[in-house]
Amino acid sequence: MSDWLDAVKWGADGLVAVIAQEAANGKVLTLAWANRDALDKTAASGEAHYWSRSRGRLWRKGEQSGHVQRVREIRLDCDRDALLYVVEQIGGIACHTGHERCFFQRLDGGRWVDVEPVLKDPEAIYRHDR
Amino acid sequence: MSDWLDAVKWGADGLVAVIAQEAANGKVLTLAWANRDALDKTAASGEAHYWSRSRGRLWRKGEQSGHVQRVREIRLDCDRDALLYVVEQIGGIACHTGHERCFFQRLDGGRWVDVEPVLKDPEAIYRHDR
Repeated sequence: MSDWLDAVKWGADGLVAVIAQEAANGKVLTLAWANRDALDKTAASGEAHYWSRSRGRLWRKGEQSGHVQRVREIRLDCDRDALLYVVEQIGGIACHTGHERCFFQRLDGGRWVDVEPVLKDPEAIYRHDR
Repeated sequence: MSDWLDAVKWGADGLVAVIAQEAANGKVLTLAWANRDALDKTAASGEAHYWSRSRGRLWRKGEQSGHVQRVREIRLDCDRDALLYVVEQIGGIACHTGHERCFFQRLDGGRWVDVEPVLKDPEAIYRHDR
């Protein structure tokens, strides 16, 4: 029974964009990518999986940092080529920089300005993997 | 002064993904694409512009439907390859299907289920262009 996976319009590279949004406060956390396997594993496990374009492999969010995303809802858009994961972000940090979320730079007077704090030093987040 | 445009990591196709989010209620409305010109015009005009991949041209959101997006904030992510427009969605309809937003299908028991209503018949939204 994988009709629902077939219904997604995977790109030529086998991927679709995935927005992750925090369920508790509605903040947009990240923009990432999923292939068929990532979406399937997300639905089966209830934890967000993505395809890492930089590493070229399946990636369970939080597998290194512990900052797992528990998925409350999976949404598909009208064109069936974009996904929305509504999640509970464990640890309150979605971004590898230690920010709450990846969208911490705001355009302000013709400049990108960091407007949100680093909550935890990335060195501390990833220490155990190094 | 376009350093801020140069700072964006445009893809090989000259595009980056753009999430539009309603400022009033935090709902994720759409996932679309922007090129350099679209982002520049968005910042200059305060109205969301995109690159339409299907039509192969610049697109001011609402130019046909009247459902303009007034942009409150433009955000860039940590990797500088994804944007977030925080907007006021004029007319309360972001999706060409007449739904409030494009993410109206939810995965439910192995099926994609429409869980949000059509607010206005698309035929009525686009009547004047036909």
